[in-house]
Amino acid sequence: MSKPIVALAGGVGAARFLDGLVRVIDPARLWIVGNTADDTEMHGLHISPDLDTVAYTLAGLANPQHGWGLAGDTFHCLEALRKLGAEAWFQLGDRDFATHLYRTERLREGATLTQVTAELIAAWGLPCKLVPMTDQRVRTLVKTRGGVLDFQTYFVRRRAHDTVLGVTFDGARRARPAHGLLQAIRQAAGIIICPSNPIISIGPILAVAGIREALRESAATVAAISPIVGGRALKGPAARMMKSLGMRVSALGVAELYRDFVDVFILDQVDAGQAAKVEALGMRVVVTDTIMTSIAKKKALARAAAELMT
Amino acid sequence: MSKPIVALAGGVGAARFLDGLVRVIDPARLWIVGNTADDTEMHGLHISPDLDTVAYTLAGLANPQHGWGLAGDTFHCLEALRKLGAEAWFQLGDRDFATHLYRTERLREGATLTQVTAELIAAWGLPCKLVPMTDQRVRTLVKTRGGVLDFQTYFVRRRAHDTVLGVTFDGARRARPAHGLLQAIRQAAGIIICPSNPIISIGPILAVAGIREALRESAATVAAISPIVGGRALKGPAARMMKSLGMRVSALGVAELYRDFVDVFILDQVDAGQAAKVEALGMRVVVTDTIMTSIAKKKALARAAAELMT
Repeated sequence: MSKPIVALAGGVGAARFLDGLVRVIDPARLWIVGNTADDTEMHGLHISPDLDTVAYTLAGLANPQHGWGLAGDTFHCLEALRKLGAEAWFQLGDRDFATHLYRTERLREGATLTQVTAELIAAWGLPCKLVPMTDQRVRTLVKTRGGVLDFQTYFVRRRAHDTVLGVTFDGARRARPAHGLLQAIRQAAGIIICPSNPIISIGPILAVAGIREALRESAATVAAISPIVGGRALKGPAARMMKSLGMRVSALGVAELYRDFVDVFILDQVDAGQAAKVEALGMRVVVTDTIMTSIAKKKALARAAAELMT
Repeated sequence: MSKPIVALAGGVGAARFLDGLVRVIDPARLWIVGNTADDTEMHGLHISPDLDTVAYTLAGLANPQHGWGLAGDTFHCLEALRKLGAEAWFQLGDRDFATHLYRTERLREGATLTQVTAELIAAWGLPCKLVPMTDQRVRTLVKTRGGVLDFQTYFVRRRAHDTVLGVTFDGARRARPAHGLLQAIRQAAGIIICPSNPIISIGPILAVAGIREALRESAATVAAISPIVGGRALKGPAARMMKSLGMRVSALGVAELYRDFVDVFILDQVDAGQAAKVEALGMRVVVTDTIMTSIAKKKALARAAAELMT
């Protein structure tokens, strides 16, 4: 068995990249580590948006418009819940509900999130591993002028309109990495930080006790792909969030957040001018096209990353 | 406020009768007492089939083919659950799932089944009361040659094929009647036993501590409508079940089960020949058309019952 390739992943941006990666490496080698700090409870169900976005995408089931949810899903259950007076601002399709029902029942039966995720991706035929960063509860809390919001309230309900004054990951320090994850990082042929929000997608994974240290100490090449291109986020509120938190809103700004553990930083051609400053952080820089507008471009970017692995 | 009319109800048969009754009496007077001994847990959700069948029917939402479930419902969630390997023999539609999700979440929050049912029927605009027989857990267990089955396994999964050797209502003796129910029975202008299976639909309600006694002691007329017509059940396995349990499979056989608390027994014209034997049990007999093939016939039967109330 070849040594594992470990990828740290958030939601839609990561899923797009990974959709290319599984086409250029042996997917059986791939350990995808999913962010679970934006997991939430809705209608009594445990929802893991980032794990599902990655799994649905790799299974070819994802809604191509949104990147999240299932293609062709209907919303009859949610509409009926709305009529019963339930909060229905979090979009959950009828087939999507099945995932959450299955997960919730298995968790109540005592299964770990790692086990349930393995069962789900086996049913969907995924050829790679997908593990939550931890089986323990970690929750992103977003500090705004109006108070501290749970992540989905900030992100979905309030559409990321609030200025972010701070972000914490409740429970991260007590959380243990998923079973086998630290070992996979230690034994990896290479590690990829997907082009996800560095604060709220990659940040929580790095905050789980032991993971950042393992990345720092790993002998493998750790490569990160910038989710900020031309000073803008490929997806979501990363740019505004970095700005309000006093960070540089650029590929360089992302590299600064990763300087203690990343060896190679992959940035877009439009940001080639930042290469020298990123190199000054002690990283090697790869300049390429990082905008994944087609399968061919996804594969090309994945190949650029995979070439760094041994 | 006029005195209440209390109706003891099972599922489809009762729902059809009540659909007529609410058209001929002031529905605000009506207390429907639902059987909850065939409640079950599926996919981690609390399902109350009889309560839902009655509520969906009275709200005009029921599937007219089956009598249970919602008209026009889709089954995308259940189909997706099936693909995940979940047991999917219990038909649950996408809109129906919303009911069970809502109920389960409210119960987990600490609401009683009585409260949740009141919330549901308010949302659906029902003008009557619908109360579970009890807020405590009572479960029908069916003894067969192959062992003891929970009710839905016997009824839905195994399609009521097994010979029934005995029926028990686990938890009934410790269960307390729903709040206000005994008082409603005591103050009632009249009480109706709907044309439901006497063993597994009405039986569990009568088994809840205090209810049978309250019916016996009530000053109001207690009228029962036979669910057995011409020696056959209007719906479901009542006839075979009565036979295998050694009971007379006839209107008279039903009357015998109710002899200690029923004052008036309503039977079908085809069973007019049994009137004298039912009268010999100490009941008054009303002979009428009990086959509810149209709204007009439902209303006529309901009027025959309502005329017995004061």
